[in-house]
Amino acid sequence: MAKVADKYLKVDPWAIIEEGFDPERNRTSESVFSLGNEYMGVRGYADEGYSGDSLPGSYFNGLNEEMEVGNHYKGIIRSLRYMVNAVDWLYTRIAVDGESLDLARSNVKDYTRRLDLRTGTYKREFIWHLAGGKKLKISFTRLVSMTMSHLGLQQVTFEPLNFTGTVDICTGLDFGMVHEERGQSMWKRLRSGGEGAVTAIMAGTLTTGNKLFSGFLLKSSQPVNTELVERERFIGRTFSLDLSQGEPASFTKLAVHVADSSASRTEEGLWTEGMELAATADRLEEREVFADQASYWSSIWATSDITIEGDPENQQGIRFCIFQLVQTYHGDHPGYNIGAKGLTGEAYRGLAFWDTESYCLPFYLFNNPKAARSLLEFRYKTLPEALQRGKEVDCEGAFYPIATIDGTESCDLWQHSNLQLHVGTAVSYGIWHYVKNTGDREFLYSKGAEMLIQISRFYASRGQWGQRSGKYGYFGVMGPDEFQLMVNNNCYINLMAKKLFEFTLDTVAEMKQKVPDEYAAVAAATALRDEELADWDNKREHMKIPLDTESGVYEEHDGFFDMPHIDIHSIPVTEFPLYSNWSYDRLYRYDMIKQPDVLMFMFLYNGEFSREAKLANYEYYESRCIHESSLSPSIHSILACEIGKPEEAYQFFEFATRLDLDNYNRNTREGLHTTSIAAAWMNIVYGFGGMRSDGPCLSFRPTMPRQWTSYSFQVRYEGVLLGITVNKDSVSFRAVDGGRTEVLIYDQPVMVDEAGTELPLGEGMMA
Amino acid sequence: MAKVADKYLKVDPWAIIEEGFDPERNRTSESVFSLGNEYMGVRGYADEGYSGDSLPGSYFNGLNEEMEVGNHYKGIIRSLRYMVNAVDWLYTRIAVDGESLDLARSNVKDYTRRLDLRTGTYKREFIWHLAGGKKLKISFTRLVSMTMSHLGLQQVTFEPLNFTGTVDICTGLDFGMVHEERGQSMWKRLRSGGEGAVTAIMAGTLTTGNKLFSGFLLKSSQPVNTELVERERFIGRTFSLDLSQGEPASFTKLAVHVADSSASRTEEGLWTEGMELAATADRLEEREVFADQASYWSSIWATSDITIEGDPENQQGIRFCIFQLVQTYHGDHPGYNIGAKGLTGEAYRGLAFWDTESYCLPFYLFNNPKAARSLLEFRYKTLPEALQRGKEVDCEGAFYPIATIDGTESCDLWQHSNLQLHVGTAVSYGIWHYVKNTGDREFLYSKGAEMLIQISRFYASRGQWGQRSGKYGYFGVMGPDEFQLMVNNNCYINLMAKKLFEFTLDTVAEMKQKVPDEYAAVAAATALRDEELADWDNKREHMKIPLDTESGVYEEHDGFFDMPHIDIHSIPVTEFPLYSNWSYDRLYRYDMIKQPDVLMFMFLYNGEFSREAKLANYEYYESRCIHESSLSPSIHSILACEIGKPEEAYQFFEFATRLDLDNYNRNTREGLHTTSIAAAWMNIVYGFGGMRSDGPCLSFRPTMPRQWTSYSFQVRYEGVLLGITVNKDSVSFRAVDGGRTEVLIYDQPVMVDEAGTELPLGEGMMA
Repeated sequence: MAKVADKYLKVDPWAIIEEGFDPERNRTSESVFSLGNEYMGVRGYADEGYSGDSLPGSYFNGLNEEMEVGNHYKGIIRSLRYMVNAVDWLYTRIAVDGESLDLARSNVKDYTRRLDLRTGTYKREFIWHLAGGKKLKISFTRLVSMTMSHLGLQQVTFEPLNFTGTVDICTGLDFGMVHEERGQSMWKRLRSGGEGAVTAIMAGTLTTGNKLFSGFLLKSSQPVNTELVERERFIGRTFSLDLSQGEPASFTKLAVHVADSSASRTEEGLWTEGMELAATADRLEEREVFADQASYWSSIWATSDITIEGDPENQQGIRFCIFQLVQTYHGDHPGYNIGAKGLTGEAYRGLAFWDTESYCLPFYLFNNPKAARSLLEFRYKTLPEALQRGKEVDCEGAFYPIATIDGTESCDLWQHSNLQLHVGTAVSYGIWHYVKNTGDREFLYSKGAEMLIQISRFYASRGQWGQRSGKYGYFGVMGPDEFQLMVNNNCYINLMAKKLFEFTLDTVAEMKQKVPDEYAAVAAATALRDEELADWDNKREHMKIPLDTESGVYEEHDGFFDMPHIDIHSIPVTEFPLYSNWSYDRLYRYDMIKQPDVLMFMFLYNGEFSREAKLANYEYYESRCIHESSLSPSIHSILACEIGKPEEAYQFFEFATRLDLDNYNRNTREGLHTTSIAAAWMNIVYGFGGMRSDGPCLSFRPTMPRQWTSYSFQVRYEGVLLGITVNKDSVSFRAVDGGRTEVLIYDQPVMVDEAGTELPLGEGMMA
Repeated sequence: MAKVADKYLKVDPWAIIEEGFDPERNRTSESVFSLGNEYMGVRGYADEGYSGDSLPGSYFNGLNEEMEVGNHYKGIIRSLRYMVNAVDWLYTRIAVDGESLDLARSNVKDYTRRLDLRTGTYKREFIWHLAGGKKLKISFTRLVSMTMSHLGLQQVTFEPLNFTGTVDICTGLDFGMVHEERGQSMWKRLRSGGEGAVTAIMAGTLTTGNKLFSGFLLKSSQPVNTELVERERFIGRTFSLDLSQGEPASFTKLAVHVADSSASRTEEGLWTEGMELAATADRLEEREVFADQASYWSSIWATSDITIEGDPENQQGIRFCIFQLVQTYHGDHPGYNIGAKGLTGEAYRGLAFWDTESYCLPFYLFNNPKAARSLLEFRYKTLPEALQRGKEVDCEGAFYPIATIDGTESCDLWQHSNLQLHVGTAVSYGIWHYVKNTGDREFLYSKGAEMLIQISRFYASRGQWGQRSGKYGYFGVMGPDEFQLMVNNNCYINLMAKKLFEFTLDTVAEMKQKVPDEYAAVAAATALRDEELADWDNKREHMKIPLDTESGVYEEHDGFFDMPHIDIHSIPVTEFPLYSNWSYDRLYRYDMIKQPDVLMFMFLYNGEFSREAKLANYEYYESRCIHESSLSPSIHSILACEIGKPEEAYQFFEFATRLDLDNYNRNTREGLHTTSIAAAWMNIVYGFGGMRSDGPCLSFRPTMPRQWTSYSFQVRYEGVLLGITVNKDSVSFRAVDGGRTEVLIYDQPVMVDEAGTELPLGEGMMA
């Protein structure tokens, strides 16, 4: 199962660089060079159009379309929502002397792409050798603004190297982009036209009533006469630029978007809002926009950078991860979630999974706690849909969807959407983890408690009592390990349910005592009955947690230990991924697991298990795990660090930061592995840095991979930004932005302040 | 779960009679009044067209279309075949004075339908009261010939009660009938026209290249001038009949069909064949056709009738069952199978299941052994498709499809088509059962052995060794009990696999010794290796058969005894059928079963289990069974007879013969429960009659339901037709058509000859 890098991009500490154009890798590069600002995202496709293999994709968080799925059993979804490909606001067509620019056909040299992680800009540059001998240097620079989320900027510069003449340009807004899975544009034009400096179009999705306003302004280095062009789903302007040999000429397009995924605005209202917003963009200076963007990223790097000395590839890799995470989500807009591919492609249909709370939340929690809260707010906002879904499956309370864009279940495989229960406990864990590390009881009391009660209600109605065991548990479920399709008493699910009940009961007890009015409010809002609390306590107490006491190994589910054995190393490499090469039913009848399940809760509730227990379970399950989820290796790496297997830890880490840069899974073309990117961050901070955030206070047991000289990372905790640097023989902790806070370092309480603390690297912590 | 009769039709020993037209029940009656002759089937819809709720359906055995199904995991089918609605050869439109006949709009009185079980004809009759006061008595009689399988006959008679005038008629062949599931006709016309007396049309399915020739001849009680009418998928003739008050006038349409489901004939070839066959029909006299049909049925009743004294409803019911079974299938055409709804509707898509070998085969085996062999020939003919399917799921050997029309898997629910393995062992059981009771070793050696080897190969590659148990078994399967969706070591599957291996090894040993040349041939054809035989023997020996030795109850699968308990009687009646009213996933997490599983193999291998074992398992499983399969109650009834629970036995039997006549499941409108009809036959013969056919020779332990005065049935065994009559205090056995044969009666060997034997009813055998 060794994953192999496809080394291609240049290594640079602060940029992603492609030199030369490779049509075979074009879709992959389009994913890697994606830009986003959480409000919208755009793949790194060619502004000027490209007739070769490409996935031009432009996405707006939450904008969705609906698709019928053909199933009629009760409780199985009948339609799903997906993120819809939206407007191509970079649409630009270029011709000189009637010859059109198209990388698939034109003679182009000195091609480079560059994504600058410090300025947040993406630039393509090349020299176009025209048929008649003319050479024209062209560069395309774009950004999506991190501070003005409705704004995208495109700047195109032309420098004629050996001639004087003109270039003909058509630039505009195109809603005709094909949604690849559906094979057509999913939009109809609602309105379009030019008003003053603004040229705009507004379109609606075909069935869901989502709307998007898109308008643009043109600025150019010389006065130009433009002509309006309108087609069915397109509006744009044509014009020409005069070119003088050796002198750059350019134009800039400022595009302003307003998306309405709630169908809450009228057409008239949205048009007016968009037009007004677009008009204000007229006052913006381009250089201000660029400066603003660079300043934003400068502040991000000041607080969230990770440095790795002695390993330029992972240095670049982890910065790319952090850059993409912040681009995808930073919590400015409540009600957004993080799709498995962020806003970088159609794969997984833009849907968010349990990855959000289980893998992504820690990055935000320790970098941008407000964003962490916003993620949890998404679940609060979609509580009504989860309650409705609970009813659909004949249960009480909130059944959070395994895959969703708007709160409704959108996974069309019933075996996942009906049997995988673990989003609910991921949410309750997220609330617990967030509140524990931020102390934000306002959130807990006002929103968290309501979710906890409704999730507990679901788990109390979905579970059952084993007839022989007399124990409570969950029958007919699929745990995180998706290679065991329908089992009873999945250990992860049972244990997480037990913790859920405990946290809910603790919260209720705390609220009763400390905030009786708020408790009364939430109890009334949820019609909570005292019998329910007793019921949850009883189920918690009698929860089945299958454990082989002799070996100390938890049984992943009833009967797992009897599952037929397969030596996973005996499976030929050519058979991976197994989902593609094995008969579907065959995947599910071995003691082979897809991703951590027992080990996952040993990571989440790390402090509750002894080192010996972790070692025994790691050795049992790791040898049976084929990591067919990109989320899997980092969890193993983190635990391997803890139990003293530094080489294995490093092997599992090896492709974490560069999963997409080196296209390890050979499917980056479909979009970035956005949630895996979060696992790379955890891999360094929780893995090598040895941070734990599930105990009474934050703790660290840093280790030092022998492959590195030193590394550093920062986490925000109790309002203090802690900077941690690990060298070959020492670790230092400092409160970067003032203040002080106590943490455990190698189990010793240490008060970290601005002056900092330096300690020797823990014994045995050097690989 | 009490099923409630919808009493509606008249009770008559030899006919099914509906008096009055009920639009609400029209579809149900269309199913009940279906005709068929195994080559084709036609629902009892209105010849004259009907604009109300109706399912006009005309089906030809094997004619199929293909439908894509949207799934892309390996081993899951991507398209399926289904029985396609074909030509309406009864198409007739009738008008008088410009007023068209349509039961939804016309004023019609004295309406009756009658299906005559002795003549094999279906007749509708009514008086049409026209707007102007005219009264016209019309009757429609039809049959599909049991002796000339290509032939259908329609006779329409008009008797003007109070006027003299004319009636305008258009009659023809319509390929425009809508296939309801697809919402359109699935045919395109290939050719049509009139040649001599024959008017014909030939059409092809849209994608599968199946073809159907249909031609007709008209005969009438008076000379008529006809005019040809052709439309896109229609050909017919219009004409008028002169009517004189009080005098019947009529026309007869002889329709001749040639179906080609193998796409083996050219258009030209099929047209010529059809035309020649149609031309010969010109020589047929109508009364000969009617007489021929009555004579055929007379011979069927002479050998296959069941009489029940003192219970007119079940008397009618069981004759309806026998009539429909023989109509659906009687083995004249090799390569046909029996769809779950026969040829009476679109439900289940015309597909055949394990019902064929498990439920239908015994009826044929003991009435028409040639037909039983023909059913097994279907599996031999489709062995190549089963071998291909085995490869698709990464196994060796033959994986027989759970649902099929042409040998390919056509069940689009992967959980059934990939996890249900038990068609293969149903086939091997069918071969075993057939050979045991007919001694047809020619079939066993020439075809059976090859199937046995390939099925054994599949079971030897699909199974696995339990890691803890060290036992062989099947993981990730669904047994006959479809309320346990994906389990390990289903007891039925494991036991049937063990018996399969044993039968295959016995057959191989026998062939090696007795017919070494034939053995060499089958070994070569299957590339059989001796190691395989050793492997099967090993797996047979170590097969896991989970049994609680204390209670004597077999565990339906690993962990079944721990499944959460539900009192099935606590489920409100309104929640049935559970498939419609419970969330799909909820069905699968109780100790509730849908149909016999452990009890099924206790029925199939009856002689291998003690009465005590049957009692213990019956009591355990019957109390957990909700009979959501119409096949379920009869198996329970048969075992209840055996273990001395006559009242329960009768309760389970109660709706077996009248499931469709009284529309117990409220879904007869979709088509008849054809395979359940076979269970009704078994219920009387194996249940009350106490016949067993799995031992060294045929045996009987007749019982007498207190609700009846007497009953009789006949079975053909070793070439001898045995007539069995059971009275309140005696049982008599007679060799009806000469010869003699030995059977066991109440465990005593008795030689039954023409003179017969009378014995007292066994002790305790009277309810």
